[in-house]
Amino acid sequence: MTTNLLPSDLWSDVLAVREHSPLVHNITNLVVINYNANSLLAAGASPVMAHAHEEVADMVGIAQALVLNIGTLDPYWIESMRLALVAASKRGIPVVLDPVGAGATAYRNESIELLLKTALPTVIRANASEIMRVAGAAVQTRGVDSSAGVHDALASAQTLVQRTQGVVCVSGPTDHILDAKRRWARLSNGHEWMTRITGVGCSATALVGAFCAVQPDAWRATVAAMALLGVVGEVATEKMMVRGLGVGSLQIALLDELQLMDANTFERHLKLEVAPW
Amino acid sequence: MTTNLLPSDLWSDVLAVREHSPLVHNITNLVVINYNANSLLAAGASPVMAHAHEEVADMVGIAQALVLNIGTLDPYWIESMRLALVAASKRGIPVVLDPVGAGATAYRNESIELLLKTALPTVIRANASEIMRVAGAAVQTRGVDSSAGVHDALASAQTLVQRTQGVVCVSGPTDHILDAKRRWARLSNGHEWMTRITGVGCSATALVGAFCAVQPDAWRATVAAMALLGVVGEVATEKMMVRGLGVGSLQIALLDELQLMDANTFERHLKLEVAPW
Amino acid sequence: MTTNLLPSDLWSDVLAVREHSPLVHNITNLVVINYNANSLLAAGASPVMAHAHEEVADMVGIAQALVLNIGTLDPYWIESMRLALVAASKRGIPVVLDPVGAGATAYRNESIELLLKTALPTVIRANASEIMRVAGAAVQTRGVDSSAGVHDALASAQTLVQRTQGVVCVSGPTDHILDAKRRWARLSNGHEWMTRITGVGCSATALVGAFCAVQPDAWRATVAAMALLGVVGEVATEKMMVRGLGVGSLQIALLDELQLMDANTFERHLKLEVAPW
Repeated sequence: MTTNLLPSDLWSDVLAVREHSPLVHNITNLVVINYNANSLLAAGASPVMAHAHEEVADMVGIAQALVLNIGTLDPYWIESMRLALVAASKRGIPVVLDPVGAGATAYRNESIELLLKTALPTVIRANASEIMRVAGAAVQTRGVDSSAGVHDALASAQTLVQRTQGVVCVSGPTDHILDAKRRWARLSNGHEWMTRITGVGCSATALVGAFCAVQPDAWRATVAAMALLGVVGEVATEKMMVRGLGVGSLQIALLDELQLMDANTFERHLKLEVAPW
Repeated sequence: MTTNLLPSDLWSDVLAVREHSPLVHNITNLVVINYNANSLLAAGASPVMAHAHEEVADMVGIAQALVLNIGTLDPYWIESMRLALVAASKRGIPVVLDPVGAGATAYRNESIELLLKTALPTVIRANASEIMRVAGAAVQTRGVDSSAGVHDALASAQTLVQRTQGVVCVSGPTDHILDAKRRWARLSNGHEWMTRITGVGCSATALVGAFCAVQPDAWRATVAAMALLGVVGEVATEKMMVRGLGVGSLQIALLDELQLMDANTFERHLKLEVAPW
Repeated sequence: MTTNLLPSDLWSDVLAVREHSPLVHNITNLVVINYNANSLLAAGASPVMAHAHEEVADMVGIAQALVLNIGTLDPYWIESMRLALVAASKRGIPVVLDPVGAGATAYRNESIELLLKTALPTVIRANASEIMRVAGAAVQTRGVDSSAGVHDALASAQTLVQRTQGVVCVSGPTDHILDAKRRWARLSNGHEWMTRITGVGCSATALVGAFCAVQPDAWRATVAAMALLGVVGEVATEKMMVRGLGVGSLQIALLDELQLMDANTFERHLKLEVAPW
């Protein structure tokens, strides 16, 4: 298994999302539900949001990927996620899990464990303290923002990869994407301002779903999605700063760049390292 | 019954919304709830969102129009819609229904049928495949985006007009608005980018509610609302493209144009044809 | 007790929010949930939204302030608010209540009364007709927008201060902030366009929560939060008008200004009067 990955490989995945416009079923949180839909549309995917127990399995039945995000969880929505997970597992479509706020409350931890016991997701994407908590490390999450450094989370990410046999993405100033074939990608794009907009991390998760729908190598798909968002965020933040604008404008510019990003800008900005772990 | 309709008639309805600021009660989906409220406010209307069974009838009691959108339906929200529909029907205020994702799941089809059996809406606005499914035609919806052409849906729209004795609007590259008096308006404004922002179609539905609140001829009110949004979208998209901006910026520019559109720009851009069907 | 308050005092509270980034737990409405989170992030605070009965008390346990907003209330969410209120009361963290739409329906009035009987909030922030209704005055609310003038509400605000022994903020063209020590601040910043964006009032409430988390004098904290938003709105609206932009762009510019506002601009624009009542 080579761990080589060219910028042009990642760009071809960006183009595949734009061309095939995969239908991505999201059961996500109430804060980011609109921004996630707009992020998917801007990137060329087709979002659908549905949570009624009566229809989640049917909606999974026409989707190419399932994205679960527990940000504003409650018992009804967790049951929606469980039902969707069972259906996705039967159909074999990729599932991406964002365990928002893992560690903040016992209920979040129990709900994540319930989902992991239902079926193992293809990809887990979270910040450092969430990954540590999901892997079982003792860490105190501060609300939904990370209280741990990314490097602290690498051992936990490896533990989690071994449990899920899937892909784990720890996002932060550098994003780390690991899989069970011991491939390890590091992406150093993005900008701190992206953490000052709600839902950017959740949109990353949604984009990973869209990329997994068109690229069967889930590790590469995750790298491509995170690379796109990282470059988009970096380019957009630079433009905002030059114009004296702030994080409100950045939120909108991210959508513009997701739609308009070109191969040349993408490959010129990409900061990617790949190695075995 | 003349089917003549002047651009200045439609513009006078735009002004009436701005002047009277009708209170529009929305029971809508979680993805677009914010954008719909902002669209109504930008156009000069006054939105209220309320879904508790304990209060929907009371809220309908002070509203001038009711807008129902099933995008993220579940049993609680469908019951909210049913209760509101009964109250609106008793009071005789206009009701606009957006059957989002009709045909995507059996539960959506059953919920739409339940609402139609409770009371017939004044206006149904949807994309082509949704209109076909609501009318009973066999068509596979792909998530919440249309999989059928607008022309395929015209026969279904006529069937639906005959059932509801109300107005049916099939939206797409050309919007078709038909009513039981066999009036048929075609609007060819707008831009494909408008489909790359979540909630624009749903905002169209909400605006139809606002216009029906001030213009008793529901067919004319629907034409005016769709005309405004179409021209607004066309003008805004041209501006974005000139500035090298994308669909994120367009989402915001649509709100600006809804607020700032003037008679001259509106009438110059309007592409309207009216005929009997 | 001096009622003197310098612009530099208020600005130091703005800086304290940016420096300490307090965790603010919001149980708020579905329309504004995203915009409130982004407003808090732009101002430097750390928002968390959680409503599951299983976790609200735990989330309150790590938060520095609790913000309750009944805009899209239903029985589940009101119970979430009650549970959070009990937990916040035990811990002694500040609680801010936004009684959205008070008077519009009997259910809203009963729910507000239930919350007030559970524990008295540190601050109540609302428009004139809502304050009058919460205080028990006979007034007809028109949906969620105020139907009464601010001056009409001052007697009601005093009644409410006497009941809660806390801070009451009546927002409008002039904001009035009163407390049980008979301090009375009047802020005359802002612009009418701010009422044409959904969630600006609700974001004011959320910001009051953030400021109360870093400034133990809740009256001063409320004045500082309202002053920041008022100056931000005034400065942003001027910029939009110069550029021929509207309320869509203003929504975004408000977030930019919340992030980028500086002491000089803030103190130059501030229109503050302080007196006993």
